[in-house]
Amino acid sequence: MVDQPLWEQIGSSFVQHYYQLFDSDRSQLGTIYIDESCLTWEGQQFQGKKAIVGKLISLPFPKIVHSITVQDHQPTPDCNILSMVVGQLKVDDDPVMGFHQSFLLKNINDAWVCTNDMFRLAIHNFG
Amino acid sequence: MVDQPLWEQIGSSFVQHYYQLFDSDRSQLGTIYIDESCLTWEGQQFQGKKAIVGKLISLPFPKIVHSITVQDHQPTPDCNILSMVVGQLKVDDDPVMGFHQSFLLKNINDAWVCTNDMFRLAIHNFG
Repeated sequence: MVDQPLWEQIGSSFVQHYYQLFDSDRSQLGTIYIDESCLTWEGQQFQGKKAIVGKLISLPFPKIVHSITVQDHQPTPDCNILSMVVGQLKVDDDPVMGFHQSFLLKNINDAWVCTNDMFRLAIHNFG
Repeated sequence: MVDQPLWEQIGSSFVQHYYQLFDSDRSQLGTIYIDESCLTWEGQQFQGKKAIVGKLISLPFPKIVHSITVQDHQPTPDCNILSMVVGQLKVDDDPVMGFHQSFLLKNINDAWVCTNDMFRLAIHNFG
């Protein structure tokens, strides 16, 4: 069995952790962002841990379940990790929707944080 | 009229240039990658300008047309630019397919190059 490269292990651990937090208690997601972090959520831009978590908490649904369809990870020349996720989500009793999300992860003081986060529902191609 | 931030101008110019080259003559795409660049194409990994362009040239279709549905851009703490594109493509006479692609752009010697590129067709959520 071939071991995964370290950046792939880190990327997939992050992704698992992120959606687990998102689905169980998204007010806890502040732990993964820093003040330089950017979020683009369906085209709306937010900067900084506080603004980002504020947006995520304000999303108008109590219950969400993400499932990951495919995920890709790459190391970058600045020793960061780029991750791209394609998945599906179910909000309350609404029909399942596709989404895609990209993350840039950076190691700061021995912890991996998310400096960049972009989210889009997959509805745009069918509008 | 509010000017776009510089990173958004650079990101959207890159994206336009990339798909224009891809659709007209994808053997020219070597100009945008460097030897450290990574491409993940439908889960397959390639590193370096030569391997990446080799993959793109080997794709089994003579004619492709991309159209961009939405694009997002962000500056990163290392002064790079992260871009995420959702779009549609048409290969030869096949039906239109959705895709998503993420790019990380870096300024090297006053030129913006692509260090990271991830591509997925939107079929995975409907398999």
